[in-house]
Amino acid sequence: MLPISEKAKIMPLSPVRKLVPYADAAKERGVKVYHLNIGQPDVPAPQEALEAVKNNRLSLVSYPHSAGNASYRQGLADYYRRIGIALSPDDIIITTGGSEAILIGFSTCFNPGDEVIVMEPFYTNYNGIAAWTDVVLKPVPCDIRTNFALPPASAFEQAITPKTRGIVVCNPNNPTGYLYSRKELEQLAAIAKKHRLYLFADEVYREFCYTDAPHVSCMQLPDMDEHVVLIDSVSKRYSLCGVRIGAIISRNREVMRSVLRFAQARLCSPAYGQLAAEGALQTPPSYFSAVRNEYIARRNYMVDALNAMDGVYCPMPQGAFYTIVKLPVADCDAFAQWLLEEFEYEKQTVMIAPASGFYATPGKGLDEARIAYVLNIEDLKKAMHCLERALKQYRERDADTAN
Amino acid sequence: MLPISEKAKIMPLSPVRKLVPYADAAKERGVKVYHLNIGQPDVPAPQEALEAVKNNRLSLVSYPHSAGNASYRQGLADYYRRIGIALSPDDIIITTGGSEAILIGFSTCFNPGDEVIVMEPFYTNYNGIAAWTDVVLKPVPCDIRTNFALPPASAFEQAITPKTRGIVVCNPNNPTGYLYSRKELEQLAAIAKKHRLYLFADEVYREFCYTDAPHVSCMQLPDMDEHVVLIDSVSKRYSLCGVRIGAIISRNREVMRSVLRFAQARLCSPAYGQLAAEGALQTPPSYFSAVRNEYIARRNYMVDALNAMDGVYCPMPQGAFYTIVKLPVADCDAFAQWLLEEFEYEKQTVMIAPASGFYATPGKGLDEARIAYVLNIEDLKKAMHCLERALKQYRERDADTAN
Repeated sequence: MLPISEKAKIMPLSPVRKLVPYADAAKERGVKVYHLNIGQPDVPAPQEALEAVKNNRLSLVSYPHSAGNASYRQGLADYYRRIGIALSPDDIIITTGGSEAILIGFSTCFNPGDEVIVMEPFYTNYNGIAAWTDVVLKPVPCDIRTNFALPPASAFEQAITPKTRGIVVCNPNNPTGYLYSRKELEQLAAIAKKHRLYLFADEVYREFCYTDAPHVSCMQLPDMDEHVVLIDSVSKRYSLCGVRIGAIISRNREVMRSVLRFAQARLCSPAYGQLAAEGALQTPPSYFSAVRNEYIARRNYMVDALNAMDGVYCPMPQGAFYTIVKLPVADCDAFAQWLLEEFEYEKQTVMIAPASGFYATPGKGLDEARIAYVLNIEDLKKAMHCLERALKQYRERDADTAN
Repeated sequence: MLPISEKAKIMPLSPVRKLVPYADAAKERGVKVYHLNIGQPDVPAPQEALEAVKNNRLSLVSYPHSAGNASYRQGLADYYRRIGIALSPDDIIITTGGSEAILIGFSTCFNPGDEVIVMEPFYTNYNGIAAWTDVVLKPVPCDIRTNFALPPASAFEQAITPKTRGIVVCNPNNPTGYLYSRKELEQLAAIAKKHRLYLFADEVYREFCYTDAPHVSCMQLPDMDEHVVLIDSVSKRYSLCGVRIGAIISRNREVMRSVLRFAQARLCSPAYGQLAAEGALQTPPSYFSAVRNEYIARRNYMVDALNAMDGVYCPMPQGAFYTIVKLPVADCDAFAQWLLEEFEYEKQTVMIAPASGFYATPGKGLDEARIAYVLNIEDLKKAMHCLERALKQYRERDADTAN
């Protein structure tokens, strides 16, 4: 066979997606699978977004500007102003989802072999984009016992080498649900300044904060204009994952000039998606308060239910709609597969994301899983009930095997 | 300032887009600009595509499958079967436009520093994707005097080095409008086999052929399954440039397995775009025959008008909706800018794409421009009239300067 590229050989297979065939097989057997594994919100998108697409008058679909529609960039600048982030439309380039924002951002800021620090566990797709751009992710471990709070500066100093060029912070965090405080972000800013690093801030879950304090954006940190590259997306904010609209944002003009060249190489972001995203800017505040209340209710139910299970520990996440939970199993990958392949309770089972895929350090997170609370409370109850049964049965099975 | 990546420094600025500020300024002065510079078709999209989006019933927009919607992939396989290309849905992965198909294809098949042969002049965005993926494009020069026909095998043998890993052929060709014959494609296939090269076939203009013979696809060449990677897009076919839906297609299973991993890293292609593209599969044949007749009429008018101008030579393109035209000016970049900055005739001017951007060899194509015939005949007439006036005035200006 013709050789494929070295990069293609190391591109990671998504740890969740390798379970998909087992989920498909379970469904074919008539088993209902509760998807706790994927961050696919179930709340309806704002009518303002959906109607903008349904009522479009396009007779053909032209290329939008490579940087994004001017009206949408202006609308986004207004959105950021309202949440206390001063930006000009020139600081914003519309991307095809947050994923492309990271791809273009890494391509712009990092050379092959450059190291980028990321708090571990981290969003698994950073692995894919890092492999694609030949960037080396260097994990700084966080601990479930501290709710995955930011480690002390010394942990970063240890991880920094002459090749380090950036830090990625996801706030609120996927997969942990942790919400970084201003003080923690200032610690990151100080490290970025001291070592001349880019600070990539993935804030796509900004609207999903469950404390009374407002979300702190890295864009609000003083004297960081040169360093901060903001990654954003409408996917979660408005339940518009499939429209593929994100943004890459920086006040560093040289970065934005280069970003535009990458944006030109792929021509433009989707026109219909931009219509939806621009429409979504008209979403009333009541939408977000309703969504927030819904997620708080789900979270509270789920965290209680999980912690009531034998041997399970779940921290209280303050943002996003995920939690990392410690399960009383030695290998969550095997357990997740068993859930789909062998277990069922009243023709139901659950699909979870083994946390190992969110760790770069081998052997870490084996007894942890990421659980997304993107199901309505009724389904979430059934899913938790299933999980509790499953854990019991899995342990009994282990005991049997041991005998 | 923090350093940007080496790659970001060499990412090309689109040769057409650097003229955009001059076009914008002209428009602000009240000058009507005829856009002969961009391949943005003006014919309406099929109703089947537009209605599929307007009538959608989505209450939220979920992530489609990373490989594309199963129904659309099946529909595309049927489309290919109808045009004589046997494919399974597994051979097809939906991409975010043809650009992403090339980006993922290059990332999958080529290592940094690998060389890829391309017939020159070539689609300027190959430059951007090559820079992004650290691939070196090696031009094999074609000649306007032979209508840009495929050079003999010896020209390829000369260009091939131990680093050569692929050939890209765009058929029908952007920017030349040349339509490669089966014999020419067989020549490329023989070279690809002999030197163990991937053969990337960019066939996004497949429906725009103006001869009586059917289009020959590289996918129809025998014993080439391991080599051929087909790049496709709905952009031009259905006037859906902005929906950002393309496809990467190969019968090489190892290539497709790797392509899927890149596809997973960017999650998915746009959901609304896939609705439009799947709807477009129902477009009746009458749509294409009407479009074809329209483009033939435009082409015939334009080629005659160009060749009737003093010192201008335009070959007769047999496909796509572009031509490379030789103009009686020393530097088309300067001329294109002058057209927008200084020239006007009855408050009108034209924007052309200097051909230098379509050449990799320095100094080549300086007296050539790419002209797209994507305007209706009335506008095309006005544009040609403008261009004729402009060339005359430009030459007189030159003569004045010489005195």
